[in-house]
Amino acid sequence: MAGSVYGTLFQISTWGESHGPGVGVTIDGCPAGLSLSEIDIQKFLDRRKPGQNKFTTKRKENDTAQILSGVFEGRTTGTPISILVENQNQKSRDYNNIMDIYRPGHADYTFDAKYGIRDYRGGGRSSGRETIGRVAAGAVASKLLNRLGISITAYAKSIGPITVPEAEYNYAAIRQNSLYMPNNDCAAQASAYLESRAANQDSSGGIIECVVSGMPAGIGEPVFDKLDANLAKAIMSIGSVKGVEIGDGFRAAASSGSANNDSFYMKENTVRKKSNHSGGILGGLSDGSPIILRAAVKPTPSIARLQETVNRMGESVSLSVHGRHDPVIVPRAVVIVESMTALTLIDMLLINMCSRLDGVIDFYK
Amino acid sequence: MAGSVYGTLFQISTWGESHGPGVGVTIDGCPAGLSLSEIDIQKFLDRRKPGQNKFTTKRKENDTAQILSGVFEGRTTGTPISILVENQNQKSRDYNNIMDIYRPGHADYTFDAKYGIRDYRGGGRSSGRETIGRVAAGAVASKLLNRLGISITAYAKSIGPITVPEAEYNYAAIRQNSLYMPNNDCAAQASAYLESRAANQDSSGGIIECVVSGMPAGIGEPVFDKLDANLAKAIMSIGSVKGVEIGDGFRAAASSGSANNDSFYMKENTVRKKSNHSGGILGGLSDGSPIILRAAVKPTPSIARLQETVNRMGESVSLSVHGRHDPVIVPRAVVIVESMTALTLIDMLLINMCSRLDGVIDFYK
Amino acid sequence: MAGSVYGTLFQISTWGESHGPGVGVTIDGCPAGLSLSEIDIQKFLDRRKPGQNKFTTKRKENDTAQILSGVFEGRTTGTPISILVENQNQKSRDYNNIMDIYRPGHADYTFDAKYGIRDYRGGGRSSGRETIGRVAAGAVASKLLNRLGISITAYAKSIGPITVPEAEYNYAAIRQNSLYMPNNDCAAQASAYLESRAANQDSSGGIIECVVSGMPAGIGEPVFDKLDANLAKAIMSIGSVKGVEIGDGFRAAASSGSANNDSFYMKENTVRKKSNHSGGILGGLSDGSPIILRAAVKPTPSIARLQETVNRMGESVSLSVHGRHDPVIVPRAVVIVESMTALTLIDMLLINMCSRLDGVIDFYK
Amino acid sequence: MAGSVYGTLFQISTWGESHGPGVGVTIDGCPAGLSLSEIDIQKFLDRRKPGQNKFTTKRKENDTAQILSGVFEGRTTGTPISILVENQNQKSRDYNNIMDIYRPGHADYTFDAKYGIRDYRGGGRSSGRETIGRVAAGAVASKLLNRLGISITAYAKSIGPITVPEAEYNYAAIRQNSLYMPNNDCAAQASAYLESRAANQDSSGGIIECVVSGMPAGIGEPVFDKLDANLAKAIMSIGSVKGVEIGDGFRAAASSGSANNDSFYMKENTVRKKSNHSGGILGGLSDGSPIILRAAVKPTPSIARLQETVNRMGESVSLSVHGRHDPVIVPRAVVIVESMTALTLIDMLLINMCSRLDGVIDFYK
Repeated sequence: MAGSVYGTLFQISTWGESHGPGVGVTIDGCPAGLSLSEIDIQKFLDRRKPGQNKFTTKRKENDTAQILSGVFEGRTTGTPISILVENQNQKSRDYNNIMDIYRPGHADYTFDAKYGIRDYRGGGRSSGRETIGRVAAGAVASKLLNRLGISITAYAKSIGPITVPEAEYNYAAIRQNSLYMPNNDCAAQASAYLESRAANQDSSGGIIECVVSGMPAGIGEPVFDKLDANLAKAIMSIGSVKGVEIGDGFRAAASSGSANNDSFYMKENTVRKKSNHSGGILGGLSDGSPIILRAAVKPTPSIARLQETVNRMGESVSLSVHGRHDPVIVPRAVVIVESMTALTLIDMLLINMCSRLDGVIDFYK
Repeated sequence: MAGSVYGTLFQISTWGESHGPGVGVTIDGCPAGLSLSEIDIQKFLDRRKPGQNKFTTKRKENDTAQILSGVFEGRTTGTPISILVENQNQKSRDYNNIMDIYRPGHADYTFDAKYGIRDYRGGGRSSGRETIGRVAAGAVASKLLNRLGISITAYAKSIGPITVPEAEYNYAAIRQNSLYMPNNDCAAQASAYLESRAANQDSSGGIIECVVSGMPAGIGEPVFDKLDANLAKAIMSIGSVKGVEIGDGFRAAASSGSANNDSFYMKENTVRKKSNHSGGILGGLSDGSPIILRAAVKPTPSIARLQETVNRMGESVSLSVHGRHDPVIVPRAVVIVESMTALTLIDMLLINMCSRLDGVIDFYK
Repeated sequence: MAGSVYGTLFQISTWGESHGPGVGVTIDGCPAGLSLSEIDIQKFLDRRKPGQNKFTTKRKENDTAQILSGVFEGRTTGTPISILVENQNQKSRDYNNIMDIYRPGHADYTFDAKYGIRDYRGGGRSSGRETIGRVAAGAVASKLLNRLGISITAYAKSIGPITVPEAEYNYAAIRQNSLYMPNNDCAAQASAYLESRAANQDSSGGIIECVVSGMPAGIGEPVFDKLDANLAKAIMSIGSVKGVEIGDGFRAAASSGSANNDSFYMKENTVRKKSNHSGGILGGLSDGSPIILRAAVKPTPSIARLQETVNRMGESVSLSVHGRHDPVIVPRAVVIVESMTALTLIDMLLINMCSRLDGVIDFYK
Repeated sequence: MAGSVYGTLFQISTWGESHGPGVGVTIDGCPAGLSLSEIDIQKFLDRRKPGQNKFTTKRKENDTAQILSGVFEGRTTGTPISILVENQNQKSRDYNNIMDIYRPGHADYTFDAKYGIRDYRGGGRSSGRETIGRVAAGAVASKLLNRLGISITAYAKSIGPITVPEAEYNYAAIRQNSLYMPNNDCAAQASAYLESRAANQDSSGGIIECVVSGMPAGIGEPVFDKLDANLAKAIMSIGSVKGVEIGDGFRAAASSGSANNDSFYMKENTVRKKSNHSGGILGGLSDGSPIILRAAVKPTPSIARLQETVNRMGESVSLSVHGRHDPVIVPRAVVIVESMTALTLIDMLLINMCSRLDGVIDFYK
């Protein structure tokens, strides 16, 4: 309960600091019999890798996943899957100049307030490298979901003030531009915007949207473990995310019941909805429509511009954060949003299996 | 893990349907020695009671809390506190007309999809009465927080399109108008707006804001159990909430690093921040500033206007939901937001106690 | 995590003190669709009721179960089942003489050491009445197990020095004698032994054995949540139990591999074992043979004989515990052992459902 | 909840198979500020290492612990501590002859029954190497306990029929003989007994006893998470353990209340007990006396003697298990019992910190 364990039946435990020997994750509860290799995981890790475009950090990280347990002859065995990614790039750098400084927008001060000690090298545990374990486990969860006919797609809906209108979505574009936007023209504008931010020694935020298709109805648990509640936690637990919404989200607050309610109708003997203001979740349970969620990502706090702050000794200091920092976190976080969504969905799908007595009896017949 | 249990060390378990004998909650993990009586709980329950103004439901509910265990001679003993509220108003009503109908915007269909059986009377477990257990437990959590110098205030920031600008906040007004808005003029406008909605057989959504003062820095757990992540889950688990944000939230997405970073400075030997865009949380840990969160509440789905839908048998039907329904959920949900916030904070404060070895050694000395 | 919650997917939360308004339990995670009424629960409660024979306490308790939620039209709905048993017999008695005294063998001192406050009336939360919630929930778990073809039988194997040899087991006798022994002659001897103990102002311990038939193979989780590990916790959590063993248990320690190993063979296309030294569990997973466990129950600590002790103020005092106390705990604890076994087994059967990918795919097809 | 995660606040997650790349553990929740190095862990691992005496396996394993995270400049930081032990000795051996055979007394059959797939090399996850993660984490837990003045000592009380009487305990002897018995003469007898077993192509069981000194009173949680209940689970979760008892354990079943009750008295302003039949735990909470527990360990199931069994295809086969197997598990399991005890105690000590409001208020003052 110190916060690096996530999930109930599909449970992951992540570890690792930015500048230690490595980072990793152990998955306990992956069902036996899934075909799995390091390639499955590598595909996901490569999507969060820096250095893929001019806006991501210049660091050359080569994050290579090694599976240390839980897979035998190409299939999962039901026992814990330990995945290790060695840190390649943690060579002795001089952190003396910032080891005592509390960078604005970062967790330096709060970690010190909590623990009294902090691995200050590269952000330590609060570094973006913490998410490698999430993504490696998310790759496994996504593969499981695919076997159940469920797929997840996330993308950058907004970069700073540049937003792709829903009417102009082109899902094919997502992998065509380095910002993971579903519209190449918007991506070009956003790219120009980011250059202006960088030129200003500044950074930008943005919004990631995530769509899940193929979810059966009835998944989630009423009351506290509502599907949207657990998704909200999963997404908000990603560093720099400051807001989460489902379906119409904050727009629903200004709407009316007649506009916001989705009418049910029948199609192919299945209950369907004429609209999807609910974002695929009603009463905390999936309603069979696509699940839609959005995450607000704050601007990268590391900026070259001079900032006023204090150090550990309580002295006022000025700080200019140089080095290899993305002017926007959004593109690299797209796969993290997908991963956290996948981890949450597979867990709730497994938990749901014991909702009905007849399902339990069938299973044990 | 079926979703009616919340928290780790301060753990609550709620139960009850709208039209059963009662609803309630058991709190396991309340520290021993807290002065507690039914009056403490009643004050909270009364704030969510319907019938307090013309916009809340006309039902006369008289929700009276009984403490059945865990309190001895006026103080908590450390053993489970069971609180029971009997349902007063569940007299035999005829639900035959809606027992098979899937009301738009409600959980009727999703509960059937999950369980294959559903207590359709008054929404059953998905009724707003489910929140009574949350509020009763929240009253206890709030009292604990007060003993630690922490206080929570929630209010209606928006009702439909009527929003109270931050510059015009008047906290004293919150308890002066029946909509719990921090500005009586805005409340009057919102009141007029709600009347127009009702006249239109329609309903409205809104936004609840919640401010926590007195939080020490360093509370929360890094990675998955970040303070904001757990708050997001807590708030999103409230029925009808479709979005949650912390600090600047979605506005941060369009901001820049230089504007969004909060500068640190020293005051009275304490690290402070010149602004609070972060909403009091950095890296998932409290930063000592007030915690600020907002919840987007969807419009009441029960509206008198005729709606198209289907029933359990897959037939198309028309539905007009008559009866005693609030045209807006926000005012009654204010105390629920406070309660869920309180439950989350006390749990994380208790978990935080073992973060440092010196704290543990001091405790056992 | 304050200890009154048990189970993961079939999760129960118990509450209540001996002399408060009542005791109870909430079950979260009972699959929907189980036929359930108060009669099912009452049958179990009646087996732990005092006053059924001359060796159980003279108190006239009439423990009547009320189901407050989670059952609709005779079937479980998947939502929490709250069960309340009002305390009938808690009339104002004078506890002033023992309120400050630490009774030997009881939890008076340890509760004070932990909490600094204690409901001393009738043992408060450490009273045997605490088990009513376990038994009520155990009745529901047992009914579920029966639907899966699994049945549990517990009985008194030993009362003090009187032990029923395995060769002389007669399961029909269990319900024929008031001591729940599987042999009426032994029960008569044990009865005489208990009379001699009582005449001596003393008490006796004993051993409860529990047999589970019909368990499929492969249930349990390897490593920490082994089936035997979880059963050991469940049984040891019953007040007065000081030892637990599975299969040959402590006898296995003096045995040899060749004698202790159970040979496998085939029968009706199923893997069987020629013997059952393992007690139905290998490597923490059920092996398809009957599960056999035993619990050592200490002598009733409340005895009329004068004992030396101290009080809260640290003064030496003498104590003679008068009142309505069983000279042996075993007979009333038989149904508690069955209940804790049932609660553990149903939980692990539900958890096991997601062990294999093909099972998960089948479920969602 | 797939069983490889243990603990609530001090939570460990183990992984690894006998013949994979390695085994390991991640500890989440170790308080910040503990001085820790690989030497601390190595000392514990060396005690479970085979090849230390003629009765342990002839395999040359050189289990070397690497700390991959959570320690900075020699102290724990509060973030997860990942410990890796590479498997040295898993060179390609021919397992074809046993890959399909269900060895009596092993988990081959039950793993297949559960998962349908199994890493058969050296027992895979059900190998004794699984305990390396427990012991590595136990070393950290033990170091924390030492800082709180608590120490744990386990030893072999019995090997087969050879038992060390309590009157002849010599704690200094424990580390002097290779069987970890608290009496060198008994160890010599046990050694001769084991030779006779080995000559007979057979094996032996035994009993491990564990004593904890320095525990404060009041630790543990009432009802389900009793200290003895959690210890019982912890110990029973060790492979080959078939019984657990606390204090007088099964002997208490044949005792009387007057003999079994421990009288309280005062010494140095502290409540003490004149005897310790309770084994240091009353009502599930520590009573300030030494905690005493015993584990019954079954004989090594791998024996050279010919055994009848079946294979995966349901055919009858004969099996003689050759290779490097200990004729008794007890000596190597001594440090595992200590480790599981340490992990349980530190977790409950941390949980206990929020039992009283005044303790919480003091902490946050």
